[in-house]
Amino acid sequence: MLELFLIGIGTGNPDHITRQAEKAIRGADLILLPHKEDNKAELARVRLSLLRDLSIDDRRISHFDMPVRRQQGTDYDRQVDEWHDAIAQRWQASLQTHLPAHSGRVALLVWGDPALYDSTLRIASRLGLAHDQVQVVPGITSMQVLCSAHGIALNEIGAPFQVTTGRQLREHGWPSGVDTLVVMLDGQCSYEQVTEADIDIYWGAYLGMPQQLLMHGRLGDIAPDITRRRARAREQNGWIMDIYLLRRTSR
Amino acid sequence: MLELFLIGIGTGNPDHITRQAEKAIRGADLILLPHKEDNKAELARVRLSLLRDLSIDDRRISHFDMPVRRQQGTDYDRQVDEWHDAIAQRWQASLQTHLPAHSGRVALLVWGDPALYDSTLRIASRLGLAHDQVQVVPGITSMQVLCSAHGIALNEIGAPFQVTTGRQLREHGWPSGVDTLVVMLDGQCSYEQVTEADIDIYWGAYLGMPQQLLMHGRLGDIAPDITRRRARAREQNGWIMDIYLLRRTSR
Ligand SMILES: C[S@@+](CC[C@H](N)C(=O)[O-])C[C@H]1O[C@@H](n2cnc3c(N)ncnc32)[C@H](O)[C@@H]1O
Ligand SMILES: C[S@@+](CC[C@H](N)C(=O)[O-])C[C@H]1O[C@@H](n2cnc3c(N)ncnc32)[C@H](O)[C@@H]1O
Repeated sequence: MLELFLIGIGTGNPDHITRQAEKAIRGADLILLPHKEDNKAELARVRLSLLRDLSIDDRRISHFDMPVRRQQGTDYDRQVDEWHDAIAQRWQASLQTHLPAHSGRVALLVWGDPALYDSTLRIASRLGLAHDQVQVVPGITSMQVLCSAHGIALNEIGAPFQVTTGRQLREHGWPSGVDTLVVMLDGQCSYEQVTEADIDIYWGAYLGMPQQLLMHGRLGDIAPDITRRRARAREQNGWIMDIYLLRRTSR
Repeated sequence: MLELFLIGIGTGNPDHITRQAEKAIRGADLILLPHKEDNKAELARVRLSLLRDLSIDDRRISHFDMPVRRQQGTDYDRQVDEWHDAIAQRWQASLQTHLPAHSGRVALLVWGDPALYDSTLRIASRLGLAHDQVQVVPGITSMQVLCSAHGIALNEIGAPFQVTTGRQLREHGWPSGVDTLVVMLDGQCSYEQVTEADIDIYWGAYLGMPQQLLMHGRLGDIAPDITRRRARAREQNGWIMDIYLLRRTSR
């Protein structure tokens, strides 16, 4: 039987790894390791050095190139769908080469937690495996590392919070019913468009990594500073991943 | 200098522990271990067996009894405030006994992640420590274990989700703008009061623990089953902790 392990590895700090993830990686017959032709080569390096760290034999690692997503046209959902199909095909090809008997434990290392804005589960669903052939191992998310780095909680006492994307924030504004908003996947500094008064921002980039950046303060005061610092860091590193928490305060 | 480490330990499975948490526990001069006179003695046992597992010397562990929260009256916020004050005083007493020079590394083991519906950070803020004297180590949350156990994601592609409490759900109903709701801290089966059509529920209790329970299906169909099963499990175990994800579907 084939078993697929989708393993959350945290967000850059090798010490984010859980014992459960470590065991799953050590127990894998085959580890599929994607390579991207983009700025995030560093993320591939994090994965690889984690495997070196655990003394995983190179022969158990199958490298594959990530297919490129078609980006022309406006049929965004369709593009993503096709892209996921293409990735699933690469996985299949690796499996056929390395596990021709279609039996064994296959691992994929997922950034952060597989449950949070990640498509690995969705790609895995294309392999036609039974429910119990797919195991998910949770990992520390960027949201949690943001909070721990700033020493803050996600929620206020007994209050709800919303997790959303930069695009949602731009298109729909501040959602009703919550005073706390965690924003991910924002390439466009969407916090600049928040018009609410009395908002605190807690921002973090490269969380868990040596170049980690943190800033916090009144949104109205420090938004331009964040945007500047973000642009500079992105230029210096060639890429950036950032996340922030916005909280309405009552001052 | 005194340093306080608030260490997320996951939700019952000792393998949820991260390498970072393990290092922080091993590096602590003193570990404060609360004991509660309630049904959750089992949670204290999980913490203790984790420490045994890491071969932590008993002399580094300071046991203290959790103060009891005053529950009469309607001034809920005040009751919680007083209770947190009382807990902070117990911590102080332990520190005075075990680290009279007021210097060293002190660890507290927090269920799940300290950022999610947990008061440890708030209690710590009463000790008058500087910002960099308090370190938070993220841990796997019940929300993540729920998703991994069911093999689902928190979000739909590019969509937001809200995390809330049973009480909020009862008092405010389904929040606008989201199709996914994670509900925690619900002692009253508040999902029964959701009147929306086409909702899927993914429910889990004792997540990560040997007695873990999972159920999922159409809310309208299985709500009574969950309530029955929950009541039975609670009776058998003497306590229960459960969490669920509700998702509006488009069927
Ligand atoms: C495709 S999502 C993956 C999220 C991941 N599964 C997790 O659990 O955090 C990528 C987004 O996560 C956030 N992110 C991931 N890693 C990060 C890091 N190390 N520092 C800051 N943000 C990060 C950013 O908002 C980024 O746009
Ligand atoms: C005080 S909050 C603490 C949450 C914790 N900090 C976390 O990260 O999950 C307690 C609530 O978390 C959820 N919870 C915690 N551990 C759980 C478990 N093992 N199984 C199911 N739900 C759990 C339940 O909703 C419970 O009412």
